[in-house]
Amino acid sequence: MDLITSAQNPRVKRLLRLQQKAADRRAEGLTLVEGLRELAVAAAAGVEVAELYHCPALPNAAPPAALAALHVPPARTWELAPAAFERVAYRDGSDGVVALVRPPARRLADLRLPANPLLLVAEAVEKPGNLGALLRTADAAAVDAVLVLDPRTDVWSPNVIRASIGCAFTRPLIACGRDEGLDWLRARGIRTFAAALTPCARAYTEADFRGPTALLLGTEADGLTPTTLARADETIIIPMRGLIDSLNVSVAAAVLTFEAVRQRG
Amino acid sequence: MDLITSAQNPRVKRLLRLQQKAADRRAEGLTLVEGLRELAVAAAAGVEVAELYHCPALPNAAPPAALAALHVPPARTWELAPAAFERVAYRDGSDGVVALVRPPARRLADLRLPANPLLLVAEAVEKPGNLGALLRTADAAAVDAVLVLDPRTDVWSPNVIRASIGCAFTRPLIACGRDEGLDWLRARGIRTFAAALTPCARAYTEADFRGPTALLLGTEADGLTPTTLARADETIIIPMRGLIDSLNVSVAAAVLTFEAVRQRG
Repeated sequence: MDLITSAQNPRVKRLLRLQQKAADRRAEGLTLVEGLRELAVAAAAGVEVAELYHCPALPNAAPPAALAALHVPPARTWELAPAAFERVAYRDGSDGVVALVRPPARRLADLRLPANPLLLVAEAVEKPGNLGALLRTADAAAVDAVLVLDPRTDVWSPNVIRASIGCAFTRPLIACGRDEGLDWLRARGIRTFAAALTPCARAYTEADFRGPTALLLGTEADGLTPTTLARADETIIIPMRGLIDSLNVSVAAAVLTFEAVRQRG
Repeated sequence: MDLITSAQNPRVKRLLRLQQKAADRRAEGLTLVEGLRELAVAAAAGVEVAELYHCPALPNAAPPAALAALHVPPARTWELAPAAFERVAYRDGSDGVVALVRPPARRLADLRLPANPLLLVAEAVEKPGNLGALLRTADAAAVDAVLVLDPRTDVWSPNVIRASIGCAFTRPLIACGRDEGLDWLRARGIRTFAAALTPCARAYTEADFRGPTALLLGTEADGLTPTTLARADETIIIPMRGLIDSLNVSVAAAVLTFEAVRQRG
Protein backbone atom coordinates (compact mmCIF):
# COMPACT_ATOMS: atom_id res chain seq x y z
CA MET A 1 0.00 0.00 0.00
CA ASP A 2 1.44 3.35 -1.03
CA LEU A 3 1.26 6.61 0.89
CA ILE A 4 0.33 9.79 -0.99
CA THR A 5 1.32 12.97 0.78
CA SER A 6 0.97 15.66 -1.88
CA ALA A 7 -2.29 17.30 -2.92
CA GLN A 8 -0.61 17.63 -6.37
CA ASN A 9 -0.21 13.86 -6.77
CA PRO A 10 -1.63 12.67 -10.12
CA ARG A 11 -3.95 10.18 -8.37
CA VAL A 12 -5.40 12.96 -6.23
CA LYS A 13 -5.89 15.13 -9.30
CA ARG A 14 -7.63 12.25 -11.05
CA LEU A 15 -9.99 11.73 -8.07
CA LEU A 16 -10.84 15.41 -8.15
CA ARG A 17 -11.47 15.30 -11.89
CA LEU A 18 -13.73 12.25 -11.59
CA GLN A 19 -15.55 13.89 -8.72
CA GLN A 20 -16.28 17.02 -10.73
CA LYS A 21 -16.73 15.85 -14.33
CA ALA A 22 -19.58 13.59 -15.39
CA ALA A 23 -18.05 13.17 -18.85
CA ASP A 24 -14.82 11.83 -17.32
CA ARG A 25 -16.77 9.45 -15.10
CA ARG A 26 -18.61 8.11 -18.13
CA ALA A 27 -15.42 7.81 -20.18
CA GLU A 28 -13.68 5.79 -17.48
CA GLY A 29 -16.77 3.90 -16.30
CA LEU A 30 -16.03 4.93 -12.72
CA THR A 31 -17.50 7.09 -10.00
CA LEU A 32 -16.59 8.21 -6.48
CA VAL A 33 -18.07 6.98 -3.24
CA GLU A 34 -17.19 8.87 -0.07
CA GLY A 35 -17.81 7.44 3.37
CA LEU A 36 -17.48 3.99 4.88
CA ARG A 37 -21.22 3.53 5.35
CA GLU A 38 -21.94 4.34 1.70
CA LEU A 39 -19.06 2.18 0.49
CA ALA A 40 -20.11 -0.76 2.66
CA VAL A 41 -23.64 -0.62 1.21
CA ALA A 42 -22.23 -0.42 -2.34
CA ALA A 43 -19.83 -3.33 -1.71
CA ALA A 44 -22.62 -5.41 -0.14
CA ALA A 45 -24.60 -4.78 -3.33
CA GLY A 46 -21.75 -6.35 -5.31
CA VAL A 47 -20.24 -3.23 -6.84
CA GLU A 48 -16.59 -3.53 -7.87
CA VAL A 49 -14.31 -1.30 -5.78
CA ALA A 50 -11.59 -0.36 -8.27
CA GLU A 51 -9.48 1.81 -5.95
CA LEU A 52 -9.68 2.56 -2.22
CA TYR A 53 -8.20 5.68 -0.63
CA HIS A 54 -8.16 6.29 3.08
CA CYS A 55 -6.80 8.85 5.49
CA PRO A 56 -6.35 7.32 8.96
CA ALA A 57 -5.01 10.61 10.35
CA LEU A 58 -8.40 12.36 10.31
CA PRO A 59 -10.18 12.82 13.67
CA ASN A 60 -13.24 10.84 12.50
CA ALA A 61 -11.26 8.24 10.51
CA ALA A 62 -12.98 4.90 9.94
CA PRO A 63 -11.37 2.06 11.93
CA PRO A 64 -8.89 -0.11 9.95
CA ALA A 65 -10.90 -3.27 10.73
CA ALA A 66 -13.96 -1.80 9.00
CA LEU A 67 -11.88 -1.05 5.92
CA ALA A 68 -10.37 -4.53 5.94
CA ALA A 69 -13.90 -5.96 5.79
CA LEU A 70 -14.22 -4.46 2.30
CA HIS A 71 -11.55 -6.94 1.04
CA VAL A 72 -9.91 -4.50 -1.36
CA PRO A 73 -6.42 -5.85 -2.29
CA PRO A 74 -3.47 -3.79 -0.96
CA ALA A 75 -2.30 -3.16 -4.53
CA ARG A 76 -5.52 -1.18 -5.10
CA THR A 77 -5.40 0.68 -1.78
CA TRP A 78 -3.67 3.97 -1.07
CA GLU A 79 -3.19 5.90 2.13
CA LEU A 80 -3.58 9.65 1.85
CA ALA A 81 -2.07 12.27 4.11
CA PRO A 82 -4.65 14.84 5.33
CA ALA A 83 -3.42 17.53 2.91
CA ALA A 84 -4.05 15.18 -0.01
CA PHE A 85 -7.31 13.78 1.31
CA GLU A 86 -8.84 17.15 2.03
CA ARG A 87 -8.47 18.04 -1.62
CA VAL A 88 -11.00 15.36 -2.61
CA ALA A 89 -13.24 15.14 0.47
CA TYR A 90 -16.49 17.00 -0.04
CA ARG A 91 -17.89 16.53 3.44
CA ASP A 92 -17.17 18.13 6.76
CA GLY A 93 -16.12 15.63 9.40
CA SER A 94 -15.22 13.05 6.77
CA ASP A 95 -14.36 9.54 7.94
CA GLY A 96 -11.39 9.50 5.57
CA VAL A 97 -12.74 6.98 3.08
CA VAL A 98 -13.04 7.59 -0.67
CA ALA A 99 -13.22 4.92 -3.34
CA LEU A 100 -13.51 4.63 -7.08
CA VAL A 101 -16.18 2.11 -7.97
CA ARG A 102 -17.47 0.77 -11.26
CA PRO A 103 -21.24 1.34 -11.51
CA PRO A 104 -22.97 -1.46 -13.43
CA ALA A 105 -23.49 -0.46 -17.08
CA ARG A 106 -27.07 -1.67 -17.36
CA ARG A 107 -29.40 -1.12 -20.29
CA LEU A 108 -33.14 -1.75 -20.39
CA ALA A 109 -32.54 -4.82 -22.59
CA ASP A 110 -30.38 -6.35 -19.84
CA LEU A 111 -32.97 -5.95 -17.11
CA ARG A 112 -34.43 -9.18 -15.77
CA LEU A 113 -37.60 -8.66 -13.77
CA PRO A 114 -39.78 -10.99 -11.70
CA ALA A 115 -43.24 -11.91 -12.97
CA ASN A 116 -45.01 -9.17 -11.00
CA PRO A 117 -42.56 -6.29 -10.80
CA LEU A 118 -42.74 -2.96 -8.98
CA LEU A 119 -40.71 -0.13 -10.53
CA LEU A 120 -40.04 3.47 -9.63
CA VAL A 121 -39.68 5.82 -12.62
CA ALA A 122 -38.42 9.39 -12.26
CA GLU A 123 -38.66 11.78 -15.18
CA ALA A 124 -36.19 14.61 -15.77
CA VAL A 125 -34.91 14.58 -12.21
CA GLU A 126 -32.29 17.29 -11.78
CA LYS A 127 -31.55 17.55 -8.07
CA PRO A 128 -29.02 14.90 -6.97
CA GLY A 129 -30.43 15.07 -3.43
CA ASN A 130 -33.93 14.18 -4.62
CA LEU A 131 -32.69 11.28 -6.75
CA GLY A 132 -30.55 10.00 -3.89
CA ALA A 133 -33.48 10.11 -1.44
CA LEU A 134 -35.63 8.29 -3.98
CA LEU A 135 -32.98 5.57 -4.33
CA ARG A 136 -32.89 5.16 -0.56
CA THR A 137 -36.66 4.56 -0.63
CA ALA A 138 -36.25 2.18 -3.58
CA ASP A 139 -33.84 0.11 -1.49
CA ALA A 140 -36.01 0.18 1.62
CA ALA A 141 -39.05 -0.96 -0.37
CA ALA A 142 -36.96 -3.37 -2.48
CA VAL A 143 -38.46 -2.19 -5.76
CA ASP A 144 -37.32 -4.26 -8.74
CA ALA A 145 -35.75 -1.40 -10.68
CA VAL A 146 -35.48 2.38 -10.86
CA LEU A 147 -35.65 4.07 -14.26
CA VAL A 148 -34.64 7.69 -14.79
CA LEU A 149 -36.16 9.08 -17.98
CA ASP A 150 -34.31 11.96 -19.67
CA PRO A 151 -32.08 12.60 -16.63
CA ARG A 152 -30.86 16.17 -16.17
CA THR A 153 -28.19 15.06 -13.72
CA ASP A 154 -25.63 12.26 -13.85
CA VAL A 155 -27.39 9.40 -12.06
CA TRP A 156 -23.97 8.15 -10.88
CA SER A 157 -22.72 11.47 -9.55
CA PRO A 158 -21.03 11.45 -6.13
CA ASN A 159 -23.82 13.70 -4.83
CA VAL A 160 -26.51 11.19 -5.80
CA ILE A 161 -24.54 8.37 -4.17
CA ARG A 162 -24.04 10.41 -1.02
CA ALA A 163 -27.75 11.30 -0.74
CA SER A 164 -28.65 7.65 -1.39
CA ILE A 165 -26.23 6.46 1.35
CA GLY A 166 -24.93 3.92 -1.16
CA CYS A 167 -28.39 2.73 -2.26
CA ALA A 168 -27.67 3.89 -5.81
CA PHE A 169 -26.15 0.41 -6.22
CA THR A 170 -28.57 -1.86 -4.40
CA ARG A 171 -31.43 -1.96 -6.94
CA PRO A 172 -31.00 -1.89 -10.74
CA LEU A 173 -30.76 1.78 -11.77
CA ILE A 174 -31.09 2.65 -15.46
CA ALA A 175 -31.04 6.02 -17.21
CA CYS A 176 -32.78 6.11 -20.59
CA GLY A 177 -34.78 8.31 -22.94
CA ARG A 178 -38.41 9.01 -22.12
CA ASP A 179 -39.96 7.23 -25.10
CA GLU A 180 -37.54 4.32 -24.83
CA GLY A 181 -38.52 3.83 -21.21
CA LEU A 182 -42.28 4.22 -21.71
CA ASP A 183 -42.24 1.91 -24.76
CA TRP A 184 -40.33 -0.70 -22.79
CA LEU A 185 -42.80 -0.56 -19.89
CA ARG A 186 -45.77 -0.89 -22.25
CA ALA A 187 -44.19 -3.79 -24.16
CA ARG A 188 -43.73 -5.68 -20.89
CA GLY A 189 -47.31 -5.11 -19.77
CA ILE A 190 -46.31 -2.99 -16.79
CA ARG A 191 -49.11 -0.61 -15.79
CA THR A 192 -47.95 3.00 -15.44
CA PHE A 193 -49.34 5.25 -12.69
CA ALA A 194 -48.46 8.92 -13.18
CA ALA A 195 -48.26 10.98 -10.01
CA ALA A 196 -50.00 14.21 -10.97
CA LEU A 197 -50.41 17.56 -9.27
CA THR A 198 -53.96 18.06 -10.60
CA PRO A 199 -56.76 17.61 -8.08
CA CYS A 200 -58.91 15.77 -10.66
CA ALA A 201 -56.64 12.73 -10.54
CA ARG A 202 -57.70 9.63 -8.63
CA ALA A 203 -56.57 9.29 -5.01
CA TYR A 204 -53.57 6.95 -4.87
CA THR A 205 -55.23 4.85 -2.16
CA GLU A 206 -57.98 3.92 -4.65
CA ALA A 207 -55.54 2.69 -7.29
CA ASP A 208 -54.73 -1.01 -7.59
CA PHE A 209 -50.97 -1.56 -7.45
CA ARG A 210 -51.13 -5.35 -7.07
CA GLY A 211 -50.22 -6.16 -10.68
CA PRO A 212 -47.05 -5.24 -12.60
CA THR A 213 -46.65 -1.59 -11.57
CA ALA A 214 -44.52 1.41 -12.46
CA LEU A 215 -44.90 4.57 -10.37
CA LEU A 216 -44.02 7.66 -12.44
CA LEU A 217 -42.82 10.85 -10.74
CA GLY A 218 -41.84 14.18 -12.24
CA THR A 219 -39.85 17.09 -10.93
CA GLU A 220 -40.89 18.98 -7.84
CA ALA A 221 -41.25 22.21 -9.80
CA ASP A 222 -43.08 21.02 -12.90
CA GLY A 223 -44.32 17.48 -12.30
CA LEU A 224 -44.35 15.03 -15.20
CA THR A 225 -44.21 16.26 -18.80
CA PRO A 226 -47.55 16.42 -20.65
CA THR A 227 -46.35 13.62 -22.96
CA THR A 228 -45.66 11.25 -20.09
CA LEU A 229 -48.93 12.16 -18.37
CA ALA A 230 -50.81 11.45 -21.60
CA ARG A 231 -49.08 8.12 -22.13
CA ALA A 232 -49.60 6.81 -18.58
CA ASP A 233 -52.30 4.20 -17.96
CA GLU A 234 -53.60 6.02 -14.87
CA THR A 235 -53.15 9.37 -13.18
CA ILE A 236 -53.02 9.38 -9.40
CA ILE A 237 -52.60 11.98 -6.68
CA ILE A 238 -51.83 12.16 -3.01
CA PRO A 239 -54.69 14.39 -1.84
CA MET A 240 -53.37 17.59 -0.27
CA ARG A 241 -55.54 18.45 2.73
CA GLY A 242 -53.78 21.62 3.86
CA LEU A 243 -52.55 24.87 2.34
CA ILE A 244 -49.52 23.55 0.46
CA ASP A 245 -50.07 22.16 -3.02
CA SER A 246 -47.37 19.51 -3.24
CA LEU A 247 -45.10 17.23 -1.27
CA ASN A 248 -41.35 16.99 -1.65
CA VAL A 249 -40.86 14.59 -4.58
CA SER A 250 -38.90 12.03 -2.57
CA VAL A 251 -41.58 12.10 0.14
CA ALA A 252 -44.32 11.62 -2.48
CA ALA A 253 -42.36 8.73 -4.02
CA ALA A 254 -42.08 7.06 -0.62
CA VAL A 255 -45.78 7.42 0.18
CA LEU A 256 -46.76 5.90 -3.19
CA THR A 257 -44.12 3.15 -3.08
CA PHE A 258 -44.97 2.00 0.44
CA GLU A 259 -48.69 2.01 -0.40
CA ALA A 260 -47.88 -0.28 -3.35
CA VAL A 261 -45.81 -2.52 -1.05
CA ARG A 262 -48.67 -2.61 1.44
CA GLN A 263 -51.21 -3.57 -1.20
CA ARG A 264 -48.94 -6.27 -2.59
CA GLY A 265 -48.71 -7.89 0.83
CA MET B 1 -43.37 53.27 2.60
CA ASP B 2 -39.73 54.06 3.31
CA LEU B 3 -36.72 53.12 1.23
CA ILE B 4 -33.64 51.67 2.96
CA THR B 5 -30.46 51.91 0.95
CA SER B 6 -27.72 51.15 3.46
CA ALA B 7 -26.69 47.71 4.63
CA GLN B 8 -25.79 49.45 7.91
CA ASN B 9 -29.36 50.65 8.51
CA PRO B 10 -30.56 49.71 12.02
CA ARG B 11 -33.57 47.84 10.59
CA VAL B 12 -31.30 45.74 8.40
CA LYS B 13 -29.06 44.98 11.35
CA ARG B 14 -32.09 43.98 13.38
CA LEU B 15 -33.29 41.62 10.63
CA LEU B 16 -29.85 40.03 10.54
CA ARG B 17 -29.81 39.65 14.33
CA LEU B 18 -33.26 38.05 14.37
CA GLN B 19 -32.24 35.76 11.54
CA GLN B 20 -29.20 34.52 13.41
CA LYS B 21 -30.14 34.54 17.09
CA ALA B 22 -32.84 32.28 18.49
CA ALA B 23 -32.70 34.07 21.86
CA ASP B 24 -33.47 37.40 20.18
CA ARG B 25 -36.35 35.85 18.24
CA ARG B 26 -37.78 34.50 21.48
CA ALA B 27 -37.30 37.79 23.31
CA GLU B 28 -39.13 39.76 20.62
CA GLY B 29 -41.68 37.05 19.78
CA LEU B 30 -40.80 37.37 16.10
CA THR B 31 -39.18 35.33 13.37
CA LEU B 32 -38.16 35.80 9.73
CA VAL B 33 -39.88 34.41 6.68
CA GLU B 34 -38.08 34.69 3.35
CA GLY B 35 -39.85 34.18 0.05
CA LEU B 36 -43.28 35.12 -1.27
CA ARG B 37 -44.51 31.52 -1.45
CA GLU B 38 -43.58 30.88 2.19
CA LEU B 39 -45.04 34.19 3.33
CA ALA B 40 -48.28 33.65 1.40
CA VAL B 41 -48.73 30.26 3.10
CA ALA B 42 -48.00 31.80 6.51
CA ALA B 43 -50.40 34.68 5.89
CA ALA B 44 -53.11 32.30 4.65
CA ALA B 45 -52.65 30.41 7.92
CA GLY B 46 -53.47 33.63 9.79
CA VAL B 47 -50.02 34.58 11.02
CA GLU B 48 -49.53 38.26 11.82
CA VAL B 49 -47.04 39.91 9.44
CA ALA B 50 -45.40 42.51 11.67
CA GLU B 51 -43.04 44.01 9.07
CA LEU B 52 -42.61 43.44 5.35
CA TYR B 53 -39.39 44.16 3.46
CA HIS B 54 -39.05 43.86 -0.27
CA CYS B 55 -36.46 44.54 -2.91
CA PRO B 56 -38.11 45.07 -6.31
CA ALA B 57 -34.74 45.63 -7.99
CA LEU B 58 -33.71 41.96 -7.82
CA PRO B 59 -33.85 39.93 -11.07
CA ASN B 60 -36.32 37.42 -9.56
CA ALA B 61 -38.30 39.99 -7.57
CA ALA B 62 -41.86 39.03 -6.68
CA PRO B 63 -44.49 41.07 -8.59
CA PRO B 64 -45.95 44.03 -6.67
CA ALA B 65 -49.50 42.67 -7.11
CA ALA B 66 -48.54 39.48 -5.27
CA LEU B 67 -47.16 41.55 -2.39
CA ALA B 68 -50.27 43.72 -2.30
CA ALA B 69 -52.36 40.57 -1.83
CA LEU B 70 -50.70 40.14 1.57
CA HIS B 71 -52.50 43.33 2.79
CA VAL B 72 -49.62 44.60 4.93
CA PRO B 73 -50.18 48.33 5.67
CA PRO B 74 -47.67 50.73 4.02
CA ALA B 75 -46.56 51.92 7.46
CA ARG B 76 -45.23 48.42 8.13
CA THR B 77 -43.64 47.97 4.71
CA TRP B 78 -40.13 48.96 3.67
CA GLU B 79 -38.38 48.85 0.34
CA LEU B 80 -34.76 47.71 0.44
CA ALA B 81 -32.07 48.53 -2.08
CA PRO B 82 -30.17 45.42 -3.28
CA ALA B 83 -27.13 46.21 -1.11
CA ALA B 84 -29.31 46.24 1.98
CA PHE B 85 -31.44 43.25 0.99
CA GLU B 86 -28.50 41.02 0.17
CA ARG B 87 -27.27 41.42 3.72
CA VAL B 88 -30.31 39.55 5.04
CA ALA B 89 -31.18 37.21 2.14
CA TYR B 90 -29.98 33.68 2.75
CA ARG B 91 -30.99 32.21 -0.58
CA ASP B 92 -29.54 32.40 -4.04
CA GLY B 93 -31.96 33.81 -6.57
CA SER B 94 -34.11 35.36 -3.85
CA ASP B 95 -37.44 36.87 -4.87
CA GLY B 96 -36.73 39.91 -2.71
CA VAL B 97 -39.29 39.25 0.01
CA VAL B 98 -38.48 39.05 3.73
CA ALA B 99 -40.93 39.56 6.56
CA LEU B 100 -41.00 39.56 10.32
CA VAL B 101 -43.92 37.51 11.55
CA ARG B 102 -45.24 36.71 14.99
CA PRO B 103 -45.42 32.93 15.47
CA PRO B 104 -48.36 31.92 17.69
CA ALA B 105 -47.21 31.41 21.29
CA ARG B 106 -49.10 28.18 21.89
CA ARG B 107 -48.83 25.96 24.93
CA LEU B 108 -50.19 22.45 25.33
CA ALA B 109 -52.89 23.77 27.66
CA ASP B 110 -54.17 26.05 24.86
CA LEU B 111 -54.48 23.28 22.29
CA ARG B 112 -58.05 22.42 21.25
CA LEU B 113 -58.29 19.10 19.46
CA PRO B 114 -61.15 17.33 17.68
CA ALA B 115 -62.65 14.20 19.24
CA ASN B 116 -60.46 11.81 17.26
CA PRO B 117 -57.19 13.62 16.70
CA LEU B 118 -54.09 12.66 14.71
CA LEU B 119 -50.81 14.16 15.95
CA LEU B 120 -47.22 14.02 14.80
CA VAL B 121 -44.64 14.09 17.62
CA ALA B 122 -40.92 14.57 16.96
CA GLU B 123 -38.43 14.02 19.75
CA ALA B 124 -35.12 15.88 20.00
CA VAL B 125 -35.15 16.94 16.36
CA GLU B 126 -32.00 18.92 15.59
CA LYS B 127 -31.87 19.38 11.82
CA PRO B 128 -34.04 22.33 10.71
CA GLY B 129 -34.42 20.71 7.27
CA ASN B 130 -35.90 17.54 8.76
CA LEU B 131 -38.33 19.46 10.96
CA GLY B 132 -39.36 21.64 8.03
CA ALA B 133 -40.01 18.61 5.79
CA LEU B 134 -42.05 17.04 8.57
CA LEU B 135 -44.16 20.20 8.90
CA ARG B 136 -44.80 20.15 5.15
CA THR B 137 -46.13 16.59 5.53
CA ALA B 138 -48.16 17.65 8.59
CA ASP B 139 -49.85 20.30 6.46
CA ALA B 140 -50.44 17.98 3.49
CA ALA B 141 -52.01 15.36 5.76
CA ALA B 142 -53.81 18.02 7.86
CA VAL B 143 -52.72 16.49 11.17
CA ASP B 144 -54.30 18.21 14.17
CA ALA B 145 -51.05 19.28 15.83
CA VAL B 146 -47.29 18.78 15.77
CA LEU B 147 -45.43 18.46 19.07
CA VAL B 148 -41.67 18.74 19.31
CA LEU B 149 -40.36 17.16 22.51
CA ASP B 150 -37.07 18.47 23.91
CA PRO B 151 -36.20 20.37 20.68
CA ARG B 152 -32.51 20.80 19.92
CA THR B 153 -33.25 23.47 17.37
CA ASP B 154 -35.46 26.56 17.47
CA VAL B 155 -38.74 25.33 15.98
CA TRP B 156 -39.36 28.87 14.63
CA SER B 157 -35.96 29.33 13.02
CA PRO B 158 -35.91 30.78 9.50
CA ASN B 159 -34.33 27.52 8.27
CA VAL B 160 -37.26 25.47 9.58
CA ILE B 161 -39.73 27.87 7.97
CA ARG B 162 -37.86 27.75 4.67
CA ALA B 163 -37.76 23.93 4.62
CA SER B 164 -41.44 23.83 5.54
CA ILE B 165 -42.35 26.26 2.70
CA GLY B 166 -44.37 28.20 5.26
CA CYS B 167 -46.14 25.13 6.68
CA ALA B 168 -44.62 25.81 10.10
CA PHE B 169 -47.69 28.02 10.60
CA THR B 170 -50.52 26.01 9.08
CA ARG B 171 -51.00 23.40 11.83
CA PRO B 172 -50.58 24.02 15.58
CA LEU B 173 -46.87 23.57 16.39
CA ILE B 174 -45.81 23.27 20.02
CA ALA B 175 -42.39 22.74 21.56
CA CYS B 176 -42.41 21.22 25.05
CA GLY B 177 -40.50 18.95 27.40
CA ARG B 178 -40.59 15.21 26.80
CA ASP B 179 -42.42 14.24 29.97
CA GLU B 180 -44.80 17.18 29.71
CA GLY B 181 -45.75 16.09 26.19
CA LEU B 182 -46.07 12.38 26.93
CA ASP B 183 -48.10 13.06 30.11
CA TRP B 184 -50.41 15.35 28.16
CA LEU B 185 -50.98 12.73 25.43
CA ARG B 186 -51.72 10.04 28.02
CA ALA B 187 -54.10 12.28 29.99
CA ARG B 188 -56.09 12.92 26.81
CA GLY B 189 -56.34 9.25 25.92
CA ILE B 190 -54.28 9.62 22.75
CA ARG B 191 -52.58 6.34 21.81
CA THR B 192 -48.84 6.72 21.17
CA PHE B 193 -47.13 4.76 18.40
CA ALA B 194 -43.33 4.90 18.62
CA ALA B 195 -41.49 4.49 15.31
CA ALA B 196 -38.62 2.19 16.22
CA LEU B 197 -35.55 1.01 14.34
CA THR B 198 -35.67 -2.48 15.89
CA PRO B 199 -36.86 -5.28 13.62
CA CYS B 200 -38.89 -6.84 16.44
CA ALA B 201 -41.41 -4.01 16.34
CA ARG B 202 -44.78 -4.54 14.69
CA ALA B 203 -45.15 -3.58 11.02
CA TYR B 204 -46.85 -0.18 10.82
CA THR B 205 -49.42 -1.54 8.34
CA GLU B 206 -50.69 -3.87 11.07
CA ALA B 207 -51.22 -1.08 13.59
CA ASP B 208 -54.66 0.47 14.06
CA PHE B 209 -54.47 4.23 13.69
CA ARG B 210 -58.23 4.82 13.53
CA GLY B 211 -58.58 6.08 17.13
CA PRO B 212 -56.91 9.12 18.75
CA THR B 213 -53.35 8.69 17.48
CA ALA B 214 -49.93 10.23 18.06
CA LEU B 215 -47.07 9.10 15.81
CA LEU B 216 -43.73 9.46 17.64
CA LEU B 217 -40.49 9.88 15.68
CA GLY B 218 -36.92 10.24 16.91
CA THR B 219 -33.78 11.52 15.28
CA GLU B 220 -32.36 9.94 12.17
CA ALA B 221 -29.12 9.04 13.97
CA ASP B 222 -30.45 7.67 17.24
CA GLY B 223 -34.20 7.16 16.94
CA LEU B 224 -36.38 7.79 19.97
CA THR B 225 -34.91 7.88 23.47
CA PRO B 226 -35.30 4.69 25.54
CA THR B 227 -37.61 6.56 27.92
CA THR B 228 -40.00 7.55 25.16
CA LEU B 229 -39.89 4.06 23.62
CA ALA B 230 -40.71 2.57 27.01
CA ARG B 231 -43.59 4.98 27.62
CA ALA B 232 -45.24 4.52 24.19
CA ASP B 233 -48.35 2.37 23.91
CA GLU B 234 -47.06 0.55 20.83
CA THR B 235 -43.82 0.21 18.92
CA ILE B 236 -44.05 0.12 15.15
CA ILE B 237 -41.60 -0.15 12.26
CA ILE B 238 -41.55 0.37 8.53
CA PRO B 239 -40.01 -2.94 7.45
CA MET B 240 -36.73 -2.39 5.61
CA ARG B 241 -36.53 -4.86 2.73
CA GLY B 242 -33.15 -3.87 1.29
CA LEU B 243 -29.61 -3.22 2.53
CA ILE B 244 -30.17 0.11 4.25
CA ASP B 245 -31.38 0.06 7.85
CA SER B 246 -33.45 3.24 8.02
CA LEU B 247 -35.36 5.83 6.03
CA ASN B 248 -34.83 9.55 6.18
CA VAL B 249 -36.86 10.69 9.20
CA SER B 250 -39.13 13.00 7.20
CA VAL B 251 -39.78 10.22 4.68
CA ALA B 252 -40.61 7.79 7.51
CA ALA B 253 -42.94 10.38 9.06
CA ALA B 254 -44.76 10.80 5.75
CA VAL B 255 -45.20 7.05 5.20
CA LEU B 256 -46.65 6.61 8.71
CA THR B 257 -48.81 9.73 8.57
CA PHE B 258 -50.36 8.93 5.21
CA GLU B 259 -51.04 5.34 6.30
CA ALA B 260 -52.89 6.77 9.30
CA VAL B 261 -54.83 9.12 7.00
CA ARG B 262 -55.66 6.19 4.70
CA GLN B 263 -56.93 4.05 7.58
CA ARG B 264 -59.01 6.90 8.97
CA GLY B 265 -60.75 7.23 5.63
